[in-house]
Amino acid sequence: VEVKIKTAIQGERGSFSEQAATKLLGKNLELVCCSSFEELFGGMKRGDAEVAIVPIENTLAGSIHRNYDLLLESGLEIVAETHLRIEHCLIGTQDAQVRQIRRVLSHPVALDQCREFFRRHRAIQAEETYDTAGAVQQIVRDGDPKVGAIAGAAAAKHFRGKVLSRNIEDNSQNFTRFFALEKAGHRRVLAGKRPARGKPKTSLVFRTKNVPGALFRCLSVFALRDINLSKIESRPQHGKPWQYLFYVDLLTGADEERTQNALRHLREITDFSKVLGSYPTL
Amino acid sequence: VEVKIKTAIQGERGSFSEQAATKLLGKNLELVCCSSFEELFGGMKRGDAEVAIVPIENTLAGSIHRNYDLLLESGLEIVAETHLRIEHCLIGTQDAQVRQIRRVLSHPVALDQCREFFRRHRAIQAEETYDTAGAVQQIVRDGDPKVGAIAGAAAAKHFRGKVLSRNIEDNSQNFTRFFALEKAGHRRVLAGKRPARGKPKTSLVFRTKNVPGALFRCLSVFALRDINLSKIESRPQHGKPWQYLFYVDLLTGADEERTQNALRHLREITDFSKVLGSYPTL
Repeated sequence: VEVKIKTAIQGERGSFSEQAATKLLGKNLELVCCSSFEELFGGMKRGDAEVAIVPIENTLAGSIHRNYDLLLESGLEIVAETHLRIEHCLIGTQDAQVRQIRRVLSHPVALDQCREFFRRHRAIQAEETYDTAGAVQQIVRDGDPKVGAIAGAAAAKHFRGKVLSRNIEDNSQNFTRFFALEKAGHRRVLAGKRPARGKPKTSLVFRTKNVPGALFRCLSVFALRDINLSKIESRPQHGKPWQYLFYVDLLTGADEERTQNALRHLREITDFSKVLGSYPTL
Repeated sequence: VEVKIKTAIQGERGSFSEQAATKLLGKNLELVCCSSFEELFGGMKRGDAEVAIVPIENTLAGSIHRNYDLLLESGLEIVAETHLRIEHCLIGTQDAQVRQIRRVLSHPVALDQCREFFRRHRAIQAEETYDTAGAVQQIVRDGDPKVGAIAGAAAAKHFRGKVLSRNIEDNSQNFTRFFALEKAGHRRVLAGKRPARGKPKTSLVFRTKNVPGALFRCLSVFALRDINLSKIESRPQHGKPWQYLFYVDLLTGADEERTQNALRHLREITDFSKVLGSYPTL
């Protein structure tokens, strides 16, 4: 008998995070549902789960900076990534009809990605909740056909809601990138589960010294070694006004010699740098 | 008689945006209060106000990407900047006391910046509203001493609420940067109001071509001309998955020769670039 992998997600069953977890780990998992990302990272520290699946970036909403902050403070490392196409549905109770709906609950980011829907349905009021799938659970439990939720089709299926309208998102180019995290140095679960396919990618964070041209010099350590970047994002540092951390993804593995050389060079010219993980691209 | 300057802000009177407006324009202004940033930018297009004051970046929460997106689509330019220290207060009705409070309303960002307060007061439930000052207006109007709001002291004064606790923010290094915006090419209001003090700063946005080392080359156009950057931030571009826009602040004026040369060089190696404004640093 295969042992189920304890997998922490933020939100409920039927959420996009569960879909990402299944995509990365298969069906043989036991979900540990957390109401916030703080709770999720706290649970990983206590060992409540072996793997955490967290959204880190969305093509429309941008990086989820809070999760980068929590990742940086945690003792976790990135062991895999995956992308999910986000398709939002209007979901109601089994007897609901679109024209009856007066209130729609969902996560603020999901509501924000369906602005056009609310412009076309002026009688419908948007209301914020902590999770898309949780909103479906709530409206089905309350049973009011005038109240709907916005979430993925999987949430409707899981909580027995009715899909009233599909693809109500403004922009079809809506993808979310998820990281799989494990305790640093462990890598037990993902390494055993699936072959490392795709070219390697390495995520790291660094803080530039506060001198002119500092970022230019930091990027030169990669450019001079023909290491390509697939992402760079700056993040103001907590408690240090107008100082920035830079999050960078390299299209090389952390164990390659040129990466090792670049990282050593980077340490010479920065105050702080840390590798967050090295994993196969998807 | 001096004519009052019509000034658009998001939120209510007594908000941090009103404080920023007063700091930049003095007391002689007529506020145009908007319930969302979309409404604010729409109103500026119609000519409902001459100047808009919008928050663009916070030292803890990061850039307000939505406002960068709206600025890019608008025909507005940045004509000034200012910084405001954000001090959050717990505010109640006149007869309220801290230990009676059970619910606290505020903007999600403000609630997020007072996590420690909620950890210390487990009996208090946080509830999201669209504006800090609007939350104070609501709780004073409703008159329930068990319901409080988190906002600046100015909001308590304006709506006659009672400050129950000061500086409840987790981190004292909490500053918000605001832009003053006017119709591009006009610059009537701010230019007439106050002398351009401080060294010049120029804000611009560009999109790199999707080739290796593209960002490194873009930064070289500034580094090679000794132009210092005070900010760089990447932003995923709507509808173009995993492509990024870069928002950069240069510590030079747009009319300086080396800036002109750098911008011409930048246009050679980018798909798209645009100057968002050139204005004195504060």
